[in-house]
Amino acid sequence: MSNDNKTWSGRFNEPVSELVKKYTGSVDFDKRLAKWDIQGSLAHAQMLTEAGVLSEDDLAAIRQGMAAIIAEIEQGTLQWSLDLEDVHMNIERRLTDKIGDAGKRLHTGRSRNDQVATDIRLWLRDEITEIQRLIRELQLSLLELAERNADVVMPGFTHLQVAQPVSFGHHMLAYVEMLGRDYERMADCRKRVNRMPLGSAALAGTTYPIRRETTAELLGFEQICQNSLDAVSDRDFAIEFTAAASLVMVHLSRLSEELILWMSPRFGFIDIADRFCTGSSIMPQKKNPDVPELVRGKSGRVIGHLTGLIMLMKSQPLAYNKDNQEDKEPLFDTVDTLVDTLRIYADMMRGVTVKPENMRAAVMQGFATATDLADYLVKKGMPFRDSHEVVAQAVRYADEKGVDLSELPLDVLQGFSDLVAEDVYTVLTPEGSLNARNHLGGTAPEQVRFQVKRWQALIEGEK
Amino acid sequence: MSNDNKTWSGRFNEPVSELVKKYTGSVDFDKRLAKWDIQGSLAHAQMLTEAGVLSEDDLAAIRQGMAAIIAEIEQGTLQWSLDLEDVHMNIERRLTDKIGDAGKRLHTGRSRNDQVATDIRLWLRDEITEIQRLIRELQLSLLELAERNADVVMPGFTHLQVAQPVSFGHHMLAYVEMLGRDYERMADCRKRVNRMPLGSAALAGTTYPIRRETTAELLGFEQICQNSLDAVSDRDFAIEFTAAASLVMVHLSRLSEELILWMSPRFGFIDIADRFCTGSSIMPQKKNPDVPELVRGKSGRVIGHLTGLIMLMKSQPLAYNKDNQEDKEPLFDTVDTLVDTLRIYADMMRGVTVKPENMRAAVMQGFATATDLADYLVKKGMPFRDSHEVVAQAVRYADEKGVDLSELPLDVLQGFSDLVAEDVYTVLTPEGSLNARNHLGGTAPEQVRFQVKRWQALIEGEK
Amino acid sequence: MSNDNKTWSGRFNEPVSELVKKYTGSVDFDKRLAKWDIQGSLAHAQMLTEAGVLSEDDLAAIRQGMAAIIAEIEQGTLQWSLDLEDVHMNIERRLTDKIGDAGKRLHTGRSRNDQVATDIRLWLRDEITEIQRLIRELQLSLLELAERNADVVMPGFTHLQVAQPVSFGHHMLAYVEMLGRDYERMADCRKRVNRMPLGSAALAGTTYPIRRETTAELLGFEQICQNSLDAVSDRDFAIEFTAAASLVMVHLSRLSEELILWMSPRFGFIDIADRFCTGSSIMPQKKNPDVPELVRGKSGRVIGHLTGLIMLMKSQPLAYNKDNQEDKEPLFDTVDTLVDTLRIYADMMRGVTVKPENMRAAVMQGFATATDLADYLVKKGMPFRDSHEVVAQAVRYADEKGVDLSELPLDVLQGFSDLVAEDVYTVLTPEGSLNARNHLGGTAPEQVRFQVKRWQALIEGEK
Amino acid sequence: MSNDNKTWSGRFNEPVSELVKKYTGSVDFDKRLAKWDIQGSLAHAQMLTEAGVLSEDDLAAIRQGMAAIIAEIEQGTLQWSLDLEDVHMNIERRLTDKIGDAGKRLHTGRSRNDQVATDIRLWLRDEITEIQRLIRELQLSLLELAERNADVVMPGFTHLQVAQPVSFGHHMLAYVEMLGRDYERMADCRKRVNRMPLGSAALAGTTYPIRRETTAELLGFEQICQNSLDAVSDRDFAIEFTAAASLVMVHLSRLSEELILWMSPRFGFIDIADRFCTGSSIMPQKKNPDVPELVRGKSGRVIGHLTGLIMLMKSQPLAYNKDNQEDKEPLFDTVDTLVDTLRIYADMMRGVTVKPENMRAAVMQGFATATDLADYLVKKGMPFRDSHEVVAQAVRYADEKGVDLSELPLDVLQGFSDLVAEDVYTVLTPEGSLNARNHLGGTAPEQVRFQVKRWQALIEGEK
Repeated sequence: MSNDNKTWSGRFNEPVSELVKKYTGSVDFDKRLAKWDIQGSLAHAQMLTEAGVLSEDDLAAIRQGMAAIIAEIEQGTLQWSLDLEDVHMNIERRLTDKIGDAGKRLHTGRSRNDQVATDIRLWLRDEITEIQRLIRELQLSLLELAERNADVVMPGFTHLQVAQPVSFGHHMLAYVEMLGRDYERMADCRKRVNRMPLGSAALAGTTYPIRRETTAELLGFEQICQNSLDAVSDRDFAIEFTAAASLVMVHLSRLSEELILWMSPRFGFIDIADRFCTGSSIMPQKKNPDVPELVRGKSGRVIGHLTGLIMLMKSQPLAYNKDNQEDKEPLFDTVDTLVDTLRIYADMMRGVTVKPENMRAAVMQGFATATDLADYLVKKGMPFRDSHEVVAQAVRYADEKGVDLSELPLDVLQGFSDLVAEDVYTVLTPEGSLNARNHLGGTAPEQVRFQVKRWQALIEGEK
Repeated sequence: MSNDNKTWSGRFNEPVSELVKKYTGSVDFDKRLAKWDIQGSLAHAQMLTEAGVLSEDDLAAIRQGMAAIIAEIEQGTLQWSLDLEDVHMNIERRLTDKIGDAGKRLHTGRSRNDQVATDIRLWLRDEITEIQRLIRELQLSLLELAERNADVVMPGFTHLQVAQPVSFGHHMLAYVEMLGRDYERMADCRKRVNRMPLGSAALAGTTYPIRRETTAELLGFEQICQNSLDAVSDRDFAIEFTAAASLVMVHLSRLSEELILWMSPRFGFIDIADRFCTGSSIMPQKKNPDVPELVRGKSGRVIGHLTGLIMLMKSQPLAYNKDNQEDKEPLFDTVDTLVDTLRIYADMMRGVTVKPENMRAAVMQGFATATDLADYLVKKGMPFRDSHEVVAQAVRYADEKGVDLSELPLDVLQGFSDLVAEDVYTVLTPEGSLNARNHLGGTAPEQVRFQVKRWQALIEGEK
Repeated sequence: MSNDNKTWSGRFNEPVSELVKKYTGSVDFDKRLAKWDIQGSLAHAQMLTEAGVLSEDDLAAIRQGMAAIIAEIEQGTLQWSLDLEDVHMNIERRLTDKIGDAGKRLHTGRSRNDQVATDIRLWLRDEITEIQRLIRELQLSLLELAERNADVVMPGFTHLQVAQPVSFGHHMLAYVEMLGRDYERMADCRKRVNRMPLGSAALAGTTYPIRRETTAELLGFEQICQNSLDAVSDRDFAIEFTAAASLVMVHLSRLSEELILWMSPRFGFIDIADRFCTGSSIMPQKKNPDVPELVRGKSGRVIGHLTGLIMLMKSQPLAYNKDNQEDKEPLFDTVDTLVDTLRIYADMMRGVTVKPENMRAAVMQGFATATDLADYLVKKGMPFRDSHEVVAQAVRYADEKGVDLSELPLDVLQGFSDLVAEDVYTVLTPEGSLNARNHLGGTAPEQVRFQVKRWQALIEGEK
Repeated sequence: MSNDNKTWSGRFNEPVSELVKKYTGSVDFDKRLAKWDIQGSLAHAQMLTEAGVLSEDDLAAIRQGMAAIIAEIEQGTLQWSLDLEDVHMNIERRLTDKIGDAGKRLHTGRSRNDQVATDIRLWLRDEITEIQRLIRELQLSLLELAERNADVVMPGFTHLQVAQPVSFGHHMLAYVEMLGRDYERMADCRKRVNRMPLGSAALAGTTYPIRRETTAELLGFEQICQNSLDAVSDRDFAIEFTAAASLVMVHLSRLSEELILWMSPRFGFIDIADRFCTGSSIMPQKKNPDVPELVRGKSGRVIGHLTGLIMLMKSQPLAYNKDNQEDKEPLFDTVDTLVDTLRIYADMMRGVTVKPENMRAAVMQGFATATDLADYLVKKGMPFRDSHEVVAQAVRYADEKGVDLSELPLDVLQGFSDLVAEDVYTVLTPEGSLNARNHLGGTAPEQVRFQVKRWQALIEGEK
């Protein structure tokens, strides 16, 4: 793959053009894999030594050389060269400059095809671990908010119409559930990321007496890829990860949509701390929820990467094709976007101020307890489909009068059904409605507190 | 949701327009859920009875009515009505026509929001089970082919250039691995599908004393959705499933691409049985690999559904919105496409004829053993980077002469390096190259046979 | 392509399997092209007759046979056979059954590859014409609403925060502009649809003395495809159309989002007529904006088709491949969705009730005239960046007092800047703010009326 | 929008957090718009001066300041500050630092909402012009190749099976046609890009006496956006452009697929110059077609951006939301990818070596002239459907004998139909087949030369 004349000049009549170097080179973006590339090389060298392919002296030289290179990278003194195309050739060349023939022997029994596949899996494995940690952080932030607001009543919406009263804490817990599934998907994906392609060489394996179990153990891989052709051409893990990341972003785009709505003056349900908002260059009164808006926008970005990655792999014949180099930039950007978004979101949710009075006012604006009245009638013996119709008539009447159901006098309510008695008013309050839904998964504050505890214990237990 | 006047006429001043009925109705496509809708209703009714909400007589009537409806559906005599909007209202109405008030009581303590979410999960759970079975069938078909052709040598390609000799069986095994991951992903997804939303009612839970553990047990759900708002609005499972299905299709699009290539006369590696091919209306000589081409094309279809489903959920506020009705058609079509494709593919691979002589001829056309020569020199003491360069020179020379490396006389080979000896010719044959890659995941026929056995045992063990 | 044994049995050893027939057959969906297929065949036959390839008797027989087939299709008596694979072979076979050898001669000088490409372009051309008409209908519906509400003041939002007062008519006109671009894009796309592939035969042209100019003229094509390989493999027009359709859906998803928001009780800006809404099976009080929600959802469907179609064509080698058969279902569904959506939307917008008092109340809730105050100060001599800061301080003060800027006494306002005088109050009213933006594209009612007239004249002029 | 305390500190209680600054800042990527931002500002300032809003002195100061800033940018000495969020505020602040109050007055009568929309349109307009130029360059490169190889016969494929002989020049012309449509689409898109949002201010227009016709003329805009709400929120042009760019990439992915196939040793139809290829780090013999592979891969990248951009706009309420900031990176990357790809492709096609002998050998491998034999029989009086069957039998016979149709003796051919005479052999040669398709769009070399001339004249005429 390298376009350095020295690498394959024996076969080629002319050097690679400058435009092609730039177009095909990857060092500008894949140098971020350097740490994992070196980690993989050190394990490979140790295995080759144990297998008798490299000498102990070679191994020592390689270790020493790599240590020096790591230092150079950390100090920012390593010169990355586009002539050497990618991170692998840059590091190998630097190593050979430092330690001579031992460096030239490092690439024995492997190819850049299995090397890059190994690097990217090592890197992604670490990033998924961090993403899982950040998901838990955000869940904890939401749990705090849920606990603090278990008793705060807000209108539950369907079709953005007032449906039934719900606890604001319950609403926050919906997102805790979504993120819980995201965490699971990341864990499932990580299993498939954490498999070792190294040892597949270019595509068919190698003629050297390699010991893949050794390398796998040194690198902490859970499994070894069982087919060399598949191992060098497989990018499932990138697609599966980006699909899982897309779902996280979809969830956060939903929460963002709600935060934006709730902060709009017509709703006025919450406020977001000033440090997460910006103003306008022209309108002096503006305070804009930039962060949720950007999160909503960035969901498209990640999903675009998913489309791009699937498109990349569609109909590719085996084994490695250069197309695969295009996996890196979308994958890197997906990880960066997700990490930044999770981090900022956990922080932002801690800066949310809840306005219970506005929420309660909104509950009273849409006959939120109509279902409670229907259930009341059912419990007095009316079939549900009939009580639904009776309440619909009552709602229509109240709507024309401009009052809530709870504001209708008893005799008026009894005009709709003689099953109505004085006790009807207890079911017509938001709080009564809330507390009545006291079963697993229901919105009653007691259930909210139960779920908060369940999740906190679960997360605590992981530590 | 239903647009039948009877359902909510008390609240509305005018009937739904015909155009709107057609636009918003779903019974044309969701009637395929009838079996699972009834399954869910029966469990719900039993639970309500155990909870004391329904009487035993009601339950008996509901069971009897549902049995009659199932018979009508099987005989194709049930009249589906667009006026009743969807499968749920059609069945409920038919039940009430048959059994009166008990039918009207069935909907107690649930809403169509949790009902449809339950139906679709029950249905998809069954479909995933079938898809997993079909994946295993296709793997078995490929394993047969791999076993039969473990010793057949073909050119392994990278960049569609001849790279190294590989076993055709090894190549087939690459797809067995991909499908193995697909099976895993389906299993992981199935866990998250198999959770019960029922009991969430419209969005907030219900005021009836429901027992969700009972319903879950009756319906075979592994878990219960823990938040009612999330439960009615969650379509993660549809997206996760479609993403997993997309990867299956990507894998089959890759195999299709190869089958098409291999059947092209310039390759001539395989033939596909006539019953999977079609001819041309104008060109009498044509025999076209229609099935793999359509599979390649249909991968776009499934991936399009994935994009559509993600787009659907992006930025939706909680809880249920009518947008969600658009989840069904893409999901149904994804399942149908996947099931048909897996079934036809397992069958088609059994009808593939392999042409070993053409494969071997192709191996001899691209210096496939050049790496073996480089490795040979390394084993004689030359550093890999140097041997790479020496072989590049030899390839260039052979290319100009129009011969393979194995056809160069010993003295010519020695002209490139005096490390070359008579034994070089054994590493320069395709078979020698193949057998030399005899490690876990390598292409040696012995490894191919090992992997075939491993997979067969694994699949056998699941039965 | 056909899988009927009779078609190519000479070459094949076994019949196509039933599963393959079903998988590869297209007659179930492509029969909707029958009318255009016959239209193309008649023009082709006439051209062949003029070119001396067919006799006048053959032509007369073909015309008579086709007329009979059209009648059968209209009466629903034509039996479509999956054995004959597609609409083309079904019609040709029916024709031959009726008129014998003349029917067998019809396919002279063409192939199904150019035939299907011609059919689909003829069909799509007609559909685009209808879509353009429906776009204009919807624009007219919006223009009516805009005209009627030119003076209605509502809060203009940015970031869903109150920004500046705008006319509701002006807001409607924004969508008229979007649809105007959609119309243009459809027109531009139609130019490229309206080019004739017929005469390209299978891929290379034909040996018969065809006269493509004649066929093109008979069929009303504007141009003739200039390269046979391109003509049979080009599906650009399907992608370009679906991209244009996606933008229409994006625009309507934006309007839908707003209608849903505005109909939410917290906004209460509009009401949608009952005939476009549905209720709930459980909550008696609900009236849900189903249509806009479904439109929002269906935008994902169309965009999914776009992704699928692009995926389909990516990396396909020339010329025709069976993959292309997968172009039809997404294209058909895109057209159907777009046509239904435009039709229902034009109707629905006529049923929108505007609630000016709620809009005006909302304007007073977010310091909507703060920019006007800043501009006022600039006109009195203060640099804009300084006035922006002064007004920000005033807004902060008013916010703390819980009043609008217009409610601050003169001396308080003068405390922020001594440039403030009594005339400041005229710029602080919503109406003053509106009328002050009286330039091309601005929100002043006078401008709204000007734009309504401009558009009405433009649309009238097209008739 | 700016997060600089100075900008809106009057309204805010705390500064924007560092994480938010990084997350919401855009100067890192939007600074590439600086040139167009200044161009827009200068026109705006001149218009304001003509309208009497700015003084001549202010204008002179602004012009002088901007000239100095351009020099700083060119010399790379301008310090871009993330505190100032974006390119607009950076430039405005720098201007104010240099020229004082006149700089503060520049933003009069505009907002960053219309400013950024103007900048991006000015920039994209220029890029489209360049892209159109590069498309023409690539077409010229292909025309050269087509002209040089008009007489070279290759197998035309359908379903990757040999269909009929075609001219290699004709095959190249298929791509010239595709690119011709791409050029048209870019031109159509450019019309809609080249409309001026400036003057829309934040969303509603402005209270200053602006003259939009003046600014439009100064900036070379063809039209003025007619609705301020639409103007600041419209990103259609970005989506339409990216869709058009996606089609260019789809076309090049198709050509890439073919180049990769043709360079594979089994095909051996072409060679790509060494300077566009790379080798392998492990396989010394490899020469890989990296550039076409990367182009194939990068098509997914651009299409991913299309998905992302559509997703971004879906369901956004009016007017400007921060989501829109996410339009820039995908748009920038789409332009860069397209420009680089077109440039390298035009260059690479000039380095393609054609191997006519291999192409001709391939023609003889698939009964490419079977259709010619069928047509021959039709011309002797047999109905096409019957001749198709006769030739199918002959092909089957020849296939079993392992010979081409042209190698069957006359009496054998006559055994299939007594209409066959001695003259049959002239239609059975590839050249005979080619020359017989001598009509508009057909593959005859004469037609190829005609098309080359037509295109060259058309492109020449544009200069």
